[in-house]
Amino acid sequence: MNHRIVAKVLGHIIHIETFAMILPAIVSIYYKEQCVSAFLIAMVIMLFTGMLLKRVPVKSEIIRVREGFSIVTFGWLVLSIFGALPFILSGTVPNFIDALFETISGFTTTGATIITDIEPLPKGILFWRSFTHWIGGMGIIVFTVALLPAIGAGGFHIFKAESPGPISDRIAPKINDTAKILYVTYIIITLLEVFLLRIGGLSFYDSFVHTFGTVGTGGFSNYNASIAEFDSTYIHVVISIFMLMSGANFALYYELVRGKWRNVLKDDELKFYLGVVFVAVLLVTINLRGTIYNHTGEALKYSVFQVSSIITTTGYATADFDLWPTFSKILLFLLMFFGGCAGSTGGAMKQIRILLVIKLVKREFKKILHPRAMIPLKMNGKAIPSDVVANISSFFVLYIIIFVIGTAIVSLEGIGMISAASAVAATLGNIGPGFELVGATQNYNHFSYPIKGLLSFFMLLGRLELFTVLSLLSPVFWKKEY
Amino acid sequence: MNHRIVAKVLGHIIHIETFAMILPAIVSIYYKEQCVSAFLIAMVIMLFTGMLLKRVPVKSEIIRVREGFSIVTFGWLVLSIFGALPFILSGTVPNFIDALFETISGFTTTGATIITDIEPLPKGILFWRSFTHWIGGMGIIVFTVALLPAIGAGGFHIFKAESPGPISDRIAPKINDTAKILYVTYIIITLLEVFLLRIGGLSFYDSFVHTFGTVGTGGFSNYNASIAEFDSTYIHVVISIFMLMSGANFALYYELVRGKWRNVLKDDELKFYLGVVFVAVLLVTINLRGTIYNHTGEALKYSVFQVSSIITTTGYATADFDLWPTFSKILLFLLMFFGGCAGSTGGAMKQIRILLVIKLVKREFKKILHPRAMIPLKMNGKAIPSDVVANISSFFVLYIIIFVIGTAIVSLEGIGMISAASAVAATLGNIGPGFELVGATQNYNHFSYPIKGLLSFFMLLGRLELFTVLSLLSPVFWKKEY
Repeated sequence: MNHRIVAKVLGHIIHIETFAMILPAIVSIYYKEQCVSAFLIAMVIMLFTGMLLKRVPVKSEIIRVREGFSIVTFGWLVLSIFGALPFILSGTVPNFIDALFETISGFTTTGATIITDIEPLPKGILFWRSFTHWIGGMGIIVFTVALLPAIGAGGFHIFKAESPGPISDRIAPKINDTAKILYVTYIIITLLEVFLLRIGGLSFYDSFVHTFGTVGTGGFSNYNASIAEFDSTYIHVVISIFMLMSGANFALYYELVRGKWRNVLKDDELKFYLGVVFVAVLLVTINLRGTIYNHTGEALKYSVFQVSSIITTTGYATADFDLWPTFSKILLFLLMFFGGCAGSTGGAMKQIRILLVIKLVKREFKKILHPRAMIPLKMNGKAIPSDVVANISSFFVLYIIIFVIGTAIVSLEGIGMISAASAVAATLGNIGPGFELVGATQNYNHFSYPIKGLLSFFMLLGRLELFTVLSLLSPVFWKKEY
Repeated sequence: MNHRIVAKVLGHIIHIETFAMILPAIVSIYYKEQCVSAFLIAMVIMLFTGMLLKRVPVKSEIIRVREGFSIVTFGWLVLSIFGALPFILSGTVPNFIDALFETISGFTTTGATIITDIEPLPKGILFWRSFTHWIGGMGIIVFTVALLPAIGAGGFHIFKAESPGPISDRIAPKINDTAKILYVTYIIITLLEVFLLRIGGLSFYDSFVHTFGTVGTGGFSNYNASIAEFDSTYIHVVISIFMLMSGANFALYYELVRGKWRNVLKDDELKFYLGVVFVAVLLVTINLRGTIYNHTGEALKYSVFQVSSIITTTGYATADFDLWPTFSKILLFLLMFFGGCAGSTGGAMKQIRILLVIKLVKREFKKILHPRAMIPLKMNGKAIPSDVVANISSFFVLYIIIFVIGTAIVSLEGIGMISAASAVAATLGNIGPGFELVGATQNYNHFSYPIKGLLSFFMLLGRLELFTVLSLLSPVFWKKEY
């Protein structure tokens, strides 16, 4: 294990984060808030720590699987620890575990909060809180690596470990170029939503905060009522559309720009994703009409928003879906496991994995009639290698194992099954709200510190897609030299 | 499709069932009950129908996959329809759907009931109700086939479709001999339990009824309080042991008799099964001690019984586990998916499949460090062919898909998530009781007829392990000639 290169890259990551903190500091200054000092102190600590780490003498620049996984896992941990400083130093979230929970929830784009009353908090702090969604959505470490010229081939391990989904397509031959293209797309989509929210009547500040929460599929708002604060169908629709856009593979936007819209229309994962959204919206609308809402239009509006929010793992709410009929709740609970597409900012299992395991089942039926046939599984017309199929099946199983074990542990808090299960599903899937005690109008503050720690761990585990983080916990990973 | 051979075998199945009905008829006569006429009328109808079907002229005796699947699926349906006659004719369960639910629940060894007050029912009827567990536990169609000399190779398709678990070992080179060995083992275990319950103070009648429920891992009792009726630790322990024995692969008992106890001790599935039981009993005991029971011994006694009952998918209860702490309930809920071993009378996914998907996940971690290594999955020292691995992964996924879709549909009854989810898990896994509205002290009578029908379908689906029944629903299965 090349600890030195890991330390050095962590130094770079901390400096990028320091740089990112300038933005909320400016917001604090603009609103003449005292919390600016919290940002300045945090930035000094971070500058100094980053410098120390960058000065570690490096013998070899080679990044293998091990170093890649360590950089990503520790990178996200270090990001969250330093990112928690403004919360602690400003006194808004004085407890370290609470502040860490909130920051991990931000960077992993979960949006689960331990803050009971959000609105009185300083605007600078709330800006930082939402900005972490934006940073974490696209993955800051790939961004950092893209800026480091010397990383070379090792960048691919990092890109693979940080990007959501089983198959990381490089759009460009070099990881650096791929990362740059993705970030540019991300910035354009961000600015577009800010513009649309602004002309919809939101303040610039509110527009930015909710755009960060949307495009990062995070879900933090600066209002206790979340998006229900805005009594405007236009705002609900804009946010619904941008949530759905952010749940799609960002590589497809690049294809669109390059005029390859045929590839986009033919994309199996996109078709499946939109199909699932359509069916879910339809079923929920039918279920809500007559039970919760009197008009179809109203049922449709709330159905579209909540379905988009949950499937993309954003977690914004315009209605307390905990009061919906069981059928709709079960559909939303199910969507918590689906998540966004590969290469999106969404969490959970990802559409491509769900699609693939369904194809796996379909193939089994074909095999009953043709027991000796070799039937490859195809995605976008290409056969998927059998080791990728095995990897995706394993991911599916492992996700469920962690969900079940997590639910059992969280239930030791003395809460009901639904609360425990949805708290785990909502953190592991980076969604935010769940049902009952962690419902859309509730928060995570009532959990004990050990459980808050565990749920924070699940958020990281989910964001980095299980294997990366869990490998580091295996002694085998550390024993021999690979 | 060779409809004629299917019809002919169905005729044989009905005659075997007619023969089986002699036993409850004798019980009715012994207790001088009026319901004997119900049995006699049913038997006449069945004799006649069976004769008609047997007379269908058969051109070819060949049984291929299609005919095998049809024989098994329709065989179970026909068994249940005729098996429901005594309930209807005696007036104990006058509604056809209710009677069918009860009979399917019996044959599939589920043990879910729609009868609110069991105790006043005639002893002959209750004997038949429990005897269906015993018949269904080992699988009556394999038994029928074993008696037909002309079936030949086609018997293997039927054996595979009816036997629980992914790998159907033939103990003997011929299916007929394998079936006979399994039935002899089953009868010996049955007689042993009857003997042990009888010397424990139960009447002969009660001993038989509860032995059928135990060795078939069914769960029907002739008492409303289930096993809690007997205030004897000895009885609880005997039933716990026989439930666990019936959840193990019956082929292993034959190995024991042949002196090959090393094979038994080395059996991966058995070790895993006992390991899971041990861990679950331990965790539940710790959780119950101090919360529900004051003494460790008491907590252990109730933990052992309930864990054994749920993991083997029997469904007997000595305690209302719905009142237990959430942690214990979640563990029991989880065990509802595990089920017995392959080749046992237990239902659900089966231990071997759970073990295999866990091995699949473990291999993925190894592959991260050795990306190019070919690592086969092994069971009992032998590599498992990759198509069997794919089949088991697909089964796991399909089971979860059916569970989720089923839960959503059942929730349309206007019941809570836990009630809906556990009703589906308990029927699909052939367990019987679930939680809340289908808890150990509740029953399935409150469901609407469409949902009772759906849950009956799930019981059959679970017993025949998904693919067999679902293939028949696929148009492809019927279109071309295979």
